[in-house]
Amino acid sequence: MANKPGIPKGTRDFKPEEMARRNYIFDTIREACKLFGYRQIETPSIENLSTLMGKYGEEGDKLLFKVLNSGDFMKKVNETDLADRNLPRLTNQMCEKGLRYDLTVPFARFVVMHRNELQLPFKRFQIQPVWRADRPQKGRYREFYQCDADVVGSPSLTNEIELLTLLDFVFRKLRIRTVIKLNNRKILSGIAEYIGAPDQLTDITVAIDKIDKIGLENVENELREKGLGEDAVVKLRPILTLSGSNQEKISVLSEILKDSPEGNTGLEEMKTVLGGYEAVTASQNSESHAEVEIDFSLARGLNYYTGTIIEVKALDTEMGSISGGGRYDNLTGVFGMPGITGVGLSFGADRIYDVLSALDLFPENAAETPRVMFVNFGEKEALKGLELVAALRAEGVSAMLYPDSVKIGKQLNYANAEGIPFIVMIGEQELNEEKATVKDMRSGEQTTVSFESIISKGAEIFV
Amino acid sequence: MANKPGIPKGTRDFKPEEMARRNYIFDTIREACKLFGYRQIETPSIENLSTLMGKYGEEGDKLLFKVLNSGDFMKKVNETDLADRNLPRLTNQMCEKGLRYDLTVPFARFVVMHRNELQLPFKRFQIQPVWRADRPQKGRYREFYQCDADVVGSPSLTNEIELLTLLDFVFRKLRIRTVIKLNNRKILSGIAEYIGAPDQLTDITVAIDKIDKIGLENVENELREKGLGEDAVVKLRPILTLSGSNQEKISVLSEILKDSPEGNTGLEEMKTVLGGYEAVTASQNSESHAEVEIDFSLARGLNYYTGTIIEVKALDTEMGSISGGGRYDNLTGVFGMPGITGVGLSFGADRIYDVLSALDLFPENAAETPRVMFVNFGEKEALKGLELVAALRAEGVSAMLYPDSVKIGKQLNYANAEGIPFIVMIGEQELNEEKATVKDMRSGEQTTVSFESIISKGAEIFV
Repeated sequence: MANKPGIPKGTRDFKPEEMARRNYIFDTIREACKLFGYRQIETPSIENLSTLMGKYGEEGDKLLFKVLNSGDFMKKVNETDLADRNLPRLTNQMCEKGLRYDLTVPFARFVVMHRNELQLPFKRFQIQPVWRADRPQKGRYREFYQCDADVVGSPSLTNEIELLTLLDFVFRKLRIRTVIKLNNRKILSGIAEYIGAPDQLTDITVAIDKIDKIGLENVENELREKGLGEDAVVKLRPILTLSGSNQEKISVLSEILKDSPEGNTGLEEMKTVLGGYEAVTASQNSESHAEVEIDFSLARGLNYYTGTIIEVKALDTEMGSISGGGRYDNLTGVFGMPGITGVGLSFGADRIYDVLSALDLFPENAAETPRVMFVNFGEKEALKGLELVAALRAEGVSAMLYPDSVKIGKQLNYANAEGIPFIVMIGEQELNEEKATVKDMRSGEQTTVSFESIISKGAEIFV
Repeated sequence: MANKPGIPKGTRDFKPEEMARRNYIFDTIREACKLFGYRQIETPSIENLSTLMGKYGEEGDKLLFKVLNSGDFMKKVNETDLADRNLPRLTNQMCEKGLRYDLTVPFARFVVMHRNELQLPFKRFQIQPVWRADRPQKGRYREFYQCDADVVGSPSLTNEIELLTLLDFVFRKLRIRTVIKLNNRKILSGIAEYIGAPDQLTDITVAIDKIDKIGLENVENELREKGLGEDAVVKLRPILTLSGSNQEKISVLSEILKDSPEGNTGLEEMKTVLGGYEAVTASQNSESHAEVEIDFSLARGLNYYTGTIIEVKALDTEMGSISGGGRYDNLTGVFGMPGITGVGLSFGADRIYDVLSALDLFPENAAETPRVMFVNFGEKEALKGLELVAALRAEGVSAMLYPDSVKIGKQLNYANAEGIPFIVMIGEQELNEEKATVKDMRSGEQTTVSFESIISKGAEIFV
C-alpha cells in the first residue's frame, strides 16, 4: 500500500497559489456574467451515455470517459459481442453513464428537460470541468474547466453585440489586450455559392487562412488539388487577397455577394453586430476597448455555427485563441425540441491563465494568503492571539495564529514562504503590557501596537 | 435520437435560483476559510483506483464509480476471470481510474505527492463534488459537494479551537443557530478500559445515544445481549445517566477516569479545546455564539478519529448533523508518509441548503437576478439601451436589455417571472427627450429619469 501515489495523466492538482490565480479568473468571468444578466447553472458531471453519444462525431464518442455500471456490470453483456471483443457494443452493455465532454450538450439537454420551468430567452453561464480521453500534451488536459455563456431562444443580434461587449469587459478587467475576430457562416456560404463550390467551405477558409504564410500561388495550387475548378479559383482570388479595414472588406464582399441572398444576410448581420459593438463601446468613457476585426478565414466549429463566428486572440503573446463562440441554430433539436436558436461564448480558462502568467498580469493580491500571522509563544500568549485573530476576522482581515509553539525562526520562515505580509508577536512582556509587536515582512519595519488598536483599527493597520 | 432526455439517478441539475443559493453557501464558507487562513486547493475528479481502493472499507470499494479504460479496455482481461465473472478482478483489469469518493483521501495523496513543495502545518480548504454509487434516497445523492477544511502536520489543540471558532463564524454568517457537540475518542477509550470492555467502544456509544429514547433498562439489556458482563454494565451506569453542564460531565468523568492515562489525556484535551473556544468567543462583542456541548454519545467516524470529535446540529429544525469532523492521526501513512496528524471539518452543503430553505433564511438578494431590465422597443431604442446598460455595469449594477423587440407584455412578464426589481423603458419619445421611464416592479412606482442620471447615478437609482 505504500506505493508512491500519483494522479492520472492529463489531470492536475491545484496548489493554493495556482488555485488563487484560477479563482481570480473564474471570479472575474462569473462577476462579469452576473453583471450582464447571465444566470449560473450547474449540470451533473455524469450524464447518461444516450445523452452524450453521437453528439461529438465518431472521434468524440471515443474520447468520452465511460463509467462502469455499478453492481454486476457483466449482467447485460452479450456472449457473441464478448467473443468478438466488439468494444463499442460491450461499452454500451457495461456502461450507462459517461463524464461530461463539454458544457453545450448538457446545456441543450438541460433546456429540453426544464423547458416548462425556464423562461426563454434564457441567458445562462456555467463554469464546470469537462473530461476528454485525449492524448495529453502541453496545454491539453483530460480534465479542464470550461466557462460558457449562452443565450437560447432569441434570434436577435443584440445578443451578439452583448457577447462582444462581454468579451471586451472580461478581458479589460483581466488587463489582457485582445483583438476580437468576427466572421459569419452565411458569408462563407455565400462565397462558396458565388464561386460555384458550395460544398467546399472548409477548403476555402483554410485557403484564406494560409495566404499570409504560403502566398497566393501555393494556396491556389492547393485549392486546385482539392478539386476546385479554374473558374472558381479565379473568382475566389479577390477574396483571398482581401485586406484593409473592416469597412473595405465589407464593401468588396457586398459587391461580390450581391446576388447571394444568404451571403447578403450574413453581411447585414455582420454590419449590425459590428456597428452595435462600436456604438456601445464608443459611448463608454473608459480606457481603450478591444478592436473587432473581420476575418473571413475564421472557421472555428464550422460544422456547428450557423451565423456569427467569434474568436479572441491576446495581442501581446502568441497563445492562439483564448475565447470563442458563435450562433448555432437548432441547439436542442437532437433532444426533440426543434427551432431553438442559441448564441454563446466559451472562455478558455487554461489559456487565459497562461497568458496572465506570461505577461505577469496577475494582481499581487491574487495569491489569497492571509494578511496577518500571529507568532505562537506558548499557551497563554496563543490564546490572546486567537482572540485578536478573531477580532481581525470580524473586520474582514484574514488572519491566523501559527498553531504550534515551536522555534520563532521556524514560524517566521513559514510566514515568509507563504508570503504573509504582516506578523504579530505577543510574548510574555507584550501580554502584560497589552501591546503587540507588528512586523511588516516586506519592509522589515517593526512597530508596537496596542491590543486595543488591533481590535479597533486592524483593517487600517494591516494593509 | 429524439428520446426525452434525463439525467442519471442520484444526480441533479441546478437551475439559476438554486445555483445562486448554493453559491451563497459556498461563498460564505469560502470567505470564512480564507479569513481564517485556510488556503484553497483542488484535486482531479478522477484518481487512480490504486489511490482510492481499500481506503473506505469493502463497502466503500463497491461504492466507487470506476472509469472504463479508454482504447481497448479488454486488453488486460484475464480469460479465467472473465469465464468466472470475477467482478472485482475484472474491474481491476478494465479500469485504472475512479471518481473521487471524498476529499480526505485525495488530500492525503496530495500532501504526500507535494510534500516537498508544501509547508507544514498546511491549512487547506477544498470545495468540490464527490461521487458515490449509493442507493439514492431523499437527501442522499450520487454526486454531491463536500466542503472540507483541514490542518495537517500540527498536533496543537489551537487547531481544534480554531475549527470550533470557524464553525461558529460560518453558521452565524448564515444565521443558523447551532449547537456544537464535542467528544474525544481518548475519553471513549478510557471509559471502555474502565469498564473492562476495551473493544466495545461502538456498543457503548450507541448505548449512550439511545438512553433518552428507550430508557436505562432497555439500554442495559441491549448491552448484555452484546456480551457486556454485569460488572461492566454496573460500572457504565453513571456514565449512561450522565447529565448536566459541561463542567458537571467533566468532573464526573475525571473521577471515573482517574486511573486511565488515555482517558485523562482525552479529558485534558477536551478542557483545553472547550476553554479556548469559550475564551475566544467571550472576547468578541458580537451577537450570541454557538454553544459547545459535551456529548459522550458522539461516535461519528469512530474508526477514523483518534482525538477530538465534533458535530454540529441546527437548533431550529430536525435535520441531523450539518457539519462534523475531528482529529485523525496518521492521515498519510497509507501513502508511505507516516506520523502526520490532521484535524478538520466537513460542511454538509446539501443539509445546510435544506436548513436555510426550511427556516427561510436565504437572503433576498441571494437570487442573483439582474437589478435592471431595459425593455426593447426596436432597433434604435435598443441600441441606446445597450449603451446605458454598459454604463450601469461599469458602475457594478447588473443589467440587461431584453434581446428581442417583442410585445411589451411579454417582456414585462419575463421581468416579473425572473424577479428583476427594475425595468427601464425607452420608446421613441424618451429617446428624443433623452429620458427613460423607470418602473420599480415591487412597488409599481414609475419615475422619469434622464439618461445622464442613469449613467452618473445608476448605483443609487437601482437599489
